Amino acid sequence: MAIRLGANQYGKSENRVVRVYRDTERHEIRDLNVSTALRGDFAGAHISGDQSDVLPTDSQKNTAFAFAKEFGVRSVEDYALTLARHFVDEVPAATGARVEVEEYAWERIADHDHAFVRSGHGVRTAVVDVDGDDVQVIAGIKDLVVMKTTGSEFHGFLRDRYTTLEDTHDRILATSLAARWRYHAPVVESGDVDWEASYAAITTLVLERFSQIHSLALQQTLYGMGEAVLERRAEVAEISFSAPNKHHFLVDLAPFGLDNPGEVFIAADRPYGLIEATVVRDDAS
Amino acid sequence: MAIRLGANQYGKSENRVVRVYRDTERHEIRDLNVSTALRGDFAGAHISGDQSDVLPTDSQKNTAFAFAKEFGVRSVEDYALTLARHFVDEVPAATGARVEVEEYAWERIADHDHAFVRSGHGVRTAVVDVDGDDVQVIAGIKDLVVMKTTGSEFHGFLRDRYTTLEDTHDRILATSLAARWRYHAPVVESGDVDWEASYAAITTLVLERFSQIHSLALQQTLYGMGEAVLERRAEVAEISFSAPNKHHFLVDLAPFGLDNPGEVFIAADRPYGLIEATVVRDDAS
Amino acid sequence: MAIRLGANQYGKSENRVVRVYRDTERHEIRDLNVSTALRGDFAGAHISGDQSDVLPTDSQKNTAFAFAKEFGVRSVEDYALTLARHFVDEVPAATGARVEVEEYAWERIADHDHAFVRSGHGVRTAVVDVDGDDVQVIAGIKDLVVMKTTGSEFHGFLRDRYTTLEDTHDRILATSLAARWRYHAPVVESGDVDWEASYAAITTLVLERFSQIHSLALQQTLYGMGEAVLERRAEVAEISFSAPNKHHFLVDLAPFGLDNPGEVFIAADRPYGLIEATVVRDDAS
Amino acid sequence: MAIRLGANQYGKSENRVVRVYRDTERHEIRDLNVSTALRGDFAGAHISGDQSDVLPTDSQKNTAFAFAKEFGVRSVEDYALTLARHFVDEVPAATGARVEVEEYAWERIADHDHAFVRSGHGVRTAVVDVDGDDVQVIAGIKDLVVMKTTGSEFHGFLRDRYTTLEDTHDRILATSLAARWRYHAPVVESGDVDWEASYAAITTLVLERFSQIHSLALQQTLYGMGEAVLERRAEVAEISFSAPNKHHFLVDLAPFGLDNPGEVFIAADRPYGLIEATVVRDDAS
Repeated sequence: MAIRLGANQYGKSENRVVRVYRDTERHEIRDLNVSTALRGDFAGAHISGDQSDVLPTDSQKNTAFAFAKEFGVRSVEDYALTLARHFVDEVPAATGARVEVEEYAWERIADHDHAFVRSGHGVRTAVVDVDGDDVQVIAGIKDLVVMKTTGSEFHGFLRDRYTTLEDTHDRILATSLAARWRYHAPVVESGDVDWEASYAAITTLVLERFSQIHSLALQQTLYGMGEAVLERRAEVAEISFSAPNKHHFLVDLAPFGLDNPGEVFIAADRPYGLIEATVVRDDAS
Repeated sequence: MAIRLGANQYGKSENRVVRVYRDTERHEIRDLNVSTALRGDFAGAHISGDQSDVLPTDSQKNTAFAFAKEFGVRSVEDYALTLARHFVDEVPAATGARVEVEEYAWERIADHDHAFVRSGHGVRTAVVDVDGDDVQVIAGIKDLVVMKTTGSEFHGFLRDRYTTLEDTHDRILATSLAARWRYHAPVVESGDVDWEASYAAITTLVLERFSQIHSLALQQTLYGMGEAVLERRAEVAEISFSAPNKHHFLVDLAPFGLDNPGEVFIAADRPYGLIEATVVRDDAS
Repeated sequence: MAIRLGANQYGKSENRVVRVYRDTERHEIRDLNVSTALRGDFAGAHISGDQSDVLPTDSQKNTAFAFAKEFGVRSVEDYALTLARHFVDEVPAATGARVEVEEYAWERIADHDHAFVRSGHGVRTAVVDVDGDDVQVIAGIKDLVVMKTTGSEFHGFLRDRYTTLEDTHDRILATSLAARWRYHAPVVESGDVDWEASYAAITTLVLERFSQIHSLALQQTLYGMGEAVLERRAEVAEISFSAPNKHHFLVDLAPFGLDNPGEVFIAADRPYGLIEATVVRDDAS
Repeated sequence: MAIRLGANQYGKSENRVVRVYRDTERHEIRDLNVSTALRGDFAGAHISGDQSDVLPTDSQKNTAFAFAKEFGVRSVEDYALTLARHFVDEVPAATGARVEVEEYAWERIADHDHAFVRSGHGVRTAVVDVDGDDVQVIAGIKDLVVMKTTGSEFHGFLRDRYTTLEDTHDRILATSLAARWRYHAPVVESGDVDWEASYAAITTLVLERFSQIHSLALQQTLYGMGEAVLERRAEVAEISFSAPNKHHFLVDLAPFGLDNPGEVFIAADRPYGLIEATVVRDDAS
């Protein structure tokens, strides 16, 4: 009954790469957090400590910074693809590479040429995974905090011995949304996706559907958002959501002689509901 | 050589009060984090465990939520003033009260009536301190993350045995700004400050001055922002800034045969410079 | 080309369950963070908003607290197994359930009967997944921060165009270790694992091997720890590690006329190496 | 009505200095987070951007690391004193300096010579403030999480219109304690305090008193701890505590047909009570 090495990967995480474009007086910035990881035949490093097949994580870091100059950051997806393919091509023992990027958004201050303020509205994410000849691109957004102050119900649910919750026909619905969508493989291979336009359109759609759907459950809202994205964006094969139900409880003000018709809430931290769902095309690769 | 009780206060921290205005179909929200504290003659509670003078922190919490209904939240300053005065008036042993509020900003999604998304651009703060008949209002903003990609220098500084830094005439200047301004006491007593307008004007001024000042040091930028606020806003007696210098170091790409004329930076976490300064009127109360 | 619901689950996350045993004057505590999730045929909730198959996350929360009384917390694994099996048995639409638990460790203060202080040495974790008749138990520890001040080398690695790192024969090795081990299915089904003893033995082994192995790479240290656990603990089928390489860089003191033979380091935050590896038995289920 | 510069200081925060003592095979480590700040006449830097009086924060950082070699870290208090005095002596414009240090505790793994594991039991703190010839040393501990599962009451408190809390004669008392004690100025000047022994004795006393005091309020527990420290440690002039009341609410299990005699609690996050108190000697300097 032998013992052996199973799945493994190694890399450099959270390289804070900031790329400034200053070709004209009107600067542009891309503010990234980049993590790279390689996998493949690295048994020697684990079992005997032989590093001859191992490209150091320090070299991966150097590459992440150098590529921001050599190839630039037209989009996080392009940048991550270039990095991931490079590692699989250049490191003989590597059979696969995974590059994860977060991008923080900035707005100009009063339309200034080189002064910016960090904006909210979530953090853009991208994961590129190259496995031999297979390439997968998963774009997304996280920490997108949204709230509806009405237009949300929850009732008619299953009841068991431990159920005390009552039906509600009007509640606050709030979540810190994470969405991740996978692009169709042929679209990725074609090389002609407009990553910036696709990201902008999908995040706008998600926000719009959140606002428009009369919600009977957070599940239903997530499905509706996913369906809209797949209907309108042919480049997307599937989309997943992870949504903590950030409970806002109506405060009982009756002891103080006050009514509370949906006006004063306490925002709770923990526990929170956590709803996760994927919406796919039947023919998704 | 007797031992005695020194300074002390007690209260309830971080009440997450969410107030929805739903008088029309177009809802409004105020999303607050409220902390209250009382001080005064509470020696009995400390020395003998006698609680007869102590209004429980649980009652303070209830009051924070009840007042969001009874008096509403026209502005965080008004709300905090009402709470602080109430505690000093109603709790016999209390000689003073301090109420701290954070407010999180939300924007409408596509101008929707009741759907919102959390915006960035910092967290609004207010501290109200009532001490007997004296009232102090300190408004502010924190976590306002700003960056200039040029227009920032640092040179001609004092050098000692431990100095290795070189002069720079072009660097990134980035900070997560906290600003707090104290209103003139007579203005507060008059009761006719437009807290919302004042907050909006001051934060706009701060951002504009940050963008416009050609910086020779973060100190100079802070002073220039403070000066502008005092010059234009007569209601403000003094303004303080706390600004971590979020270093962005130019990455040396020469080993890879690449130049780097201010294009690729690494955003560092720690250590960071920390610059704190107050700008005051000579006649500040 | 139809659109449909893909993978999904829902539950209540981070229930902070604290169980006190006070049967004698010498109290015991189990301090838990419990997350539950159900999966199965919940298409109705997503597509039409029909909740009739959905046991609310609020009921899941109630169950987590009630079971701490009804069945107690002899071990986090037992507690999680009871919860997960309950959900799969009682919720008709549920085909699977996943229960994740964190446990925070406390020590007695001076051997006191009912006064405790939180201890360090990592957070205990357990994940129980019930899928129909299949049951999987994965125990673990995370946030176990360890350091060796010598006995760690890194050299002979692959060099490419982007490599600037030099060989080192003496460095600090530090990590915040997460380890997760899966128990053999037959052992779990037998019901007679001593979870407390197994956890104690494995964490002790991991610490001991970390201290004893002369490290040629973090990979080699992880493999050595995993091998030791599999050799000595027959109940374990495989063990995985996730280990950020918390870099400690030697500070160059030469500009100040000082040498630095491995005495003064700066502990860096980001980026960090991240090494992940699994060690398995060939016959692991 | 002129505008002028008010209070200001600047420095380098969170230098992660790790000092290894390897004079013998049995290594020792001091793991520090060091922040320094200077104050004085720095108006030029603020008003005209003239840096000629400003020792860069980068030089302060270099000094923090160099001093860990030149003078070592026998204790965090000694180390901080040496740094603060150096800055006031060497920077002509500086009239004062403040050095803050956190120290993280490590234990040996199985008594190993050079392998360690981070321990819990709080983070040691020290603040040294040099103002001209005046020197102040404030030592402390923070994040010391403690709990009593009985021996805590809260009743007989003041009731007002907003009070709903009921008396309790048995509750959980839990807090994450921060304590800071100031040493008598003559003791500091004498130079012969045994900082290590004093820290160990005081933290032990604080824990012991927490466990022994039958608590009628968190205020009373804090006062009792402070009193004990002042009675037994002549070198201490005053001691302050900041203690969040980490509420553990008894869960109502009656709906499920279960009683709950102090056995199952939910640990709440926010809001929390926050109790702050100082205990002083009458003759404290």
